[in-house]
Amino acid sequence: MEHLEVPQFLALLVVILGAAKLFGWLAQRIGQPAVLGELLAGVVVGTSVLGLVDPKQETFHLLAELGVIILLFEIGLETDLRKLLKVGGASAAVALVGVVLPFAAGYGLCLWLGLGNLVALTAGAALTATSVGITARVLSDLGRLQDPESQVVLGAAVIDDVVGLVMLTVVIGITKGQEPTALGIAWVTAVAFGFLLATLLVGRWVVPPLLRLVGKVDLPGTLPLLGLLLAFGLAWLAHTAGSALIIGAFAAGLLLAPTEKAHDIEKGVKQLGHFFVPIFFVTVGAAVDVRVLNPFDAVNHQTLLVGGLLIAAAVATKFAAGYAPFWFRGNKAVIGVGMVPRGEVGLIFAQTGLASGVFSPGLFSAVTFMVMVTTFLSPPLLKWLLPPRPPDQPTAEPEGVADLVTQA
Amino acid sequence: MEHLEVPQFLALLVVILGAAKLFGWLAQRIGQPAVLGELLAGVVVGTSVLGLVDPKQETFHLLAELGVIILLFEIGLETDLRKLLKVGGASAAVALVGVVLPFAAGYGLCLWLGLGNLVALTAGAALTATSVGITARVLSDLGRLQDPESQVVLGAAVIDDVVGLVMLTVVIGITKGQEPTALGIAWVTAVAFGFLLATLLVGRWVVPPLLRLVGKVDLPGTLPLLGLLLAFGLAWLAHTAGSALIIGAFAAGLLLAPTEKAHDIEKGVKQLGHFFVPIFFVTVGAAVDVRVLNPFDAVNHQTLLVGGLLIAAAVATKFAAGYAPFWFRGNKAVIGVGMVPRGEVGLIFAQTGLASGVFSPGLFSAVTFMVMVTTFLSPPLLKWLLPPRPPDQPTAEPEGVADLVTQA
Repeated sequence: MEHLEVPQFLALLVVILGAAKLFGWLAQRIGQPAVLGELLAGVVVGTSVLGLVDPKQETFHLLAELGVIILLFEIGLETDLRKLLKVGGASAAVALVGVVLPFAAGYGLCLWLGLGNLVALTAGAALTATSVGITARVLSDLGRLQDPESQVVLGAAVIDDVVGLVMLTVVIGITKGQEPTALGIAWVTAVAFGFLLATLLVGRWVVPPLLRLVGKVDLPGTLPLLGLLLAFGLAWLAHTAGSALIIGAFAAGLLLAPTEKAHDIEKGVKQLGHFFVPIFFVTVGAAVDVRVLNPFDAVNHQTLLVGGLLIAAAVATKFAAGYAPFWFRGNKAVIGVGMVPRGEVGLIFAQTGLASGVFSPGLFSAVTFMVMVTTFLSPPLLKWLLPPRPPDQPTAEPEGVADLVTQA
Repeated sequence: MEHLEVPQFLALLVVILGAAKLFGWLAQRIGQPAVLGELLAGVVVGTSVLGLVDPKQETFHLLAELGVIILLFEIGLETDLRKLLKVGGASAAVALVGVVLPFAAGYGLCLWLGLGNLVALTAGAALTATSVGITARVLSDLGRLQDPESQVVLGAAVIDDVVGLVMLTVVIGITKGQEPTALGIAWVTAVAFGFLLATLLVGRWVVPPLLRLVGKVDLPGTLPLLGLLLAFGLAWLAHTAGSALIIGAFAAGLLLAPTEKAHDIEKGVKQLGHFFVPIFFVTVGAAVDVRVLNPFDAVNHQTLLVGGLLIAAAVATKFAAGYAPFWFRGNKAVIGVGMVPRGEVGLIFAQTGLASGVFSPGLFSAVTFMVMVTTFLSPPLLKWLLPPRPPDQPTAEPEGVADLVTQA
């Protein structure tokens, strides 16, 4: 791990956040969600183009993780648990079909290509991931987080994240030569979902008196910070209990959302989000190696071919999953497209496969290619399917307006 | 450097920020500035008591530095350059006397104690430091940043910080066996001060059109972030040019303060400050080893004796420096006490002395003891000399009020 000095750290923050804001703004100018620009900013400053930002550098990795944790906390704060549960059946159907179909397609495709059983299992698992961060951020950018379709996607993406974690545990076990047992998988699954359930049940009793206690602390800016510490604490607890970090952060947001302090907390946390969240998306972009896309290099031909097949399977199966809840009245195409981006979760699978030696460098590149295309495809498609709300929608409110009111 | 995993990072953030808020709140309850509580929180969670937080861990060191940079940017945003220059003569006198007297006292004391010339030079240099961060934060906590006395202290502390940097450069040179030359010292001094001057002169022409350009970016939360990037950029530039990081951040604040966007930027940056600034004070506290204070351990007797003499010299000489601008009409005791805390700057000198082998572990502990006492002494004394302003003062405005107005 390379040592990072303070001036170099500051310069890199200027590069990362400056590029994120510049590309985010350009993306918005051409009618795209800002997050697409931030991902592209990452590609430009990252490994494969300018080489300025190393997404594996420890401090930036930690800040990026803080970014996605803060993002999921924010999303949780804006989510009404009752609304989420109302479409819970639809979410579960989307998540279930959205895991089974991509896995089967990826597994079958790899076997058909003559790759081994272990390789096919790992590649299939990589296809099941959905990046809840990217989809939630796009829906938030478009001011559509409260739509029923968005609630279905959000619920399904959260379930998918837990399933992805189970998959990863199993895949890491398999790549280490361990035989997966049905009982083992069931246990990991039960723990991962049980954490969310237990937290929400216990938290409903614990959080309100805690907030009343904390309300007595009259230091300025304390409330948002303590809300954030609840998110960090639950994220840590989720991980320790065997669930995913962001599930804990999301649960913290869900618990605080119905309280009267939710608005104050959200306002303060949003400012921190403006700093940390782009670091996450830039490092996701920076981890992508676009050199595998160069068609003039003969080495890449097979990567592009296999990657293309994986992309077709990845997009078609997740899109189909959107139509799984046949009883749901709403725009099912939005749900399907919302489930498509693999984002950082897909990259983690690809890296696990490469590090364990299961994936050849070529297959790793092909899976990375699939992650890249699905990630960059979804924001513009969602934007096209969902024109943004008029600015009276609270989630799309520019802060400048609030400041003017305060000053007046 | 130990590797830090994400869950561990989150748990440490909860410990650091939770302890900072708890102790800060307790300090305020007993009528002390919150920063005193944050420093104490650092001692409790740090090296010598609970051992949870290692201030040398790279990521926390970087976040702490971000904290002091953000703090100085905030202070700069609240500072009127004309008011600062008005008392510039008084500041310069305080800074000059506040460097010469402590250096002479520390040097003489060490020679009298029979320590070598090199040791005496280094210890003398350690006595010259003033932590602008601690004093500025206390004055800000008390809502007294706009008082003429505070302006003198702020100006003197900034000058002192640049002088401290020059001292450190010279001392590092000496400990490496280089003979300091008058020309070399003059050059380092000229560069360090020249940066501030050049930045303010050039910035006055560059910043307003830059702000107008940036005002066209309509992404929410962008303005405070871009202000922050200016602070990071100038901090990096200051370091690269041979000046101190925080001088660049302070200059960025001074440049943005007279613009019409200052209030918006300050509001957003304050929220980030609530997160990062306590990390700085907690790590300063965490670096202190209170075990050297145990009077029942005979090993510490000499440390306590030498430390006690250093403390007397450190407090008396900086306090006397407050009376140097004899023409200044105001509470000179406030100025003197405001210059007393050595904080992290003193610790850096102590560590440089220890690392180079110039300081024995005993003398290192004595200097650390001096830093500790001067740092913890100043906040309650300032509080006692300066009762807080009524809450209509803008710097003491609790954010809750602004939120209520926005909601209404």
